[in-house]
Amino acid sequence: MRRYLYRGKILSLAIEDDHWEIVEHKDAVALLVSDPRHGVLFVEQYRPAIGRKTLEIPAGLIEEGETPEQTAMRELAEEAQLTGELEKLAEFYTSPGFSDEKTYLFRVSNPRPASGTPDDDEDLTIRWRQPAEVLAAARRGELAISASTLAGLLYALEGEK
Amino acid sequence: MRRYLYRGKILSLAIEDDHWEIVEHKDAVALLVSDPRHGVLFVEQYRPAIGRKTLEIPAGLIEEGETPEQTAMRELAEEAQLTGELEKLAEFYTSPGFSDEKTYLFRVSNPRPASGTPDDDEDLTIRWRQPAEVLAAARRGELAISASTLAGLLYALEGEK
Repeated sequence: MRRYLYRGKILSLAIEDDHWEIVEHKDAVALLVSDPRHGVLFVEQYRPAIGRKTLEIPAGLIEEGETPEQTAMRELAEEAQLTGELEKLAEFYTSPGFSDEKTYLFRVSNPRPASGTPDDDEDLTIRWRQPAEVLAAARRGELAISASTLAGLLYALEGEK
Repeated sequence: MRRYLYRGKILSLAIEDDHWEIVEHKDAVALLVSDPRHGVLFVEQYRPAIGRKTLEIPAGLIEEGETPEQTAMRELAEEAQLTGELEKLAEFYTSPGFSDEKTYLFRVSNPRPASGTPDDDEDLTIRWRQPAEVLAAARRGELAISASTLAGLLYALEGEK
């Protein structure tokens, strides 16, 4: 039995069987855009939850009625003003010990310009960086990355071999 | 300004600047234990948050006063009754759009038996599986894995090349 303590915009908090603290959260997509010359496409942004800037591959929440693929194309246009072809690389639960959030990771091939406008509450800077450098800086704790970004980086490096 | 709506055992819920829904959560460790013959060590367990069983690499929450390395050794003993040498592979925020949870991923080398007892509220089954098979089943949505598990699998496969 799940008893709700809070129902919000992007998440809800519930207690299951009077024991488990559970966060229901929208599902998400994350996008690996890479280019042999420029590296991997990241967005740099301030994340209030952790109080610091992160370097993450483009990502976003799946809105009601959207398929993961539709969200991927929308976020790609909004965050990077790009379009391209999608290949699903993986799907996973970000932190299934407490949250039901599921993330779909896509590779974007043949990226090319498209028009799009960032969300009002997002303040993003686009950065192209070499995946091996970002991975090393994240391992040293000098750069904050997300789980989706780590997976994307590992797929990008695999593709370079 | 962070206003708290709930303070719990493993997480707290807050609203920052009357806008951002934020979950404060304990940090975590995840452990890649692999063996050329048997594959990678997983724990199979039911996760109330998602209402299904997952196949995850051993993982656990960092308790007050513990270093990530101490948690890693404790979880390794509790979940798999093993000990070994640790190498940090990566650190990342599981889902920095809403949560401050940070995960430290370690590779365990030279694994060997140790004594340990699972937590009371954990019902775990140990499974050795080939990483490529698990990755393919997860991509098809047939198996539920965590973000840490995906990263661990990609590191395991990199090591096989």
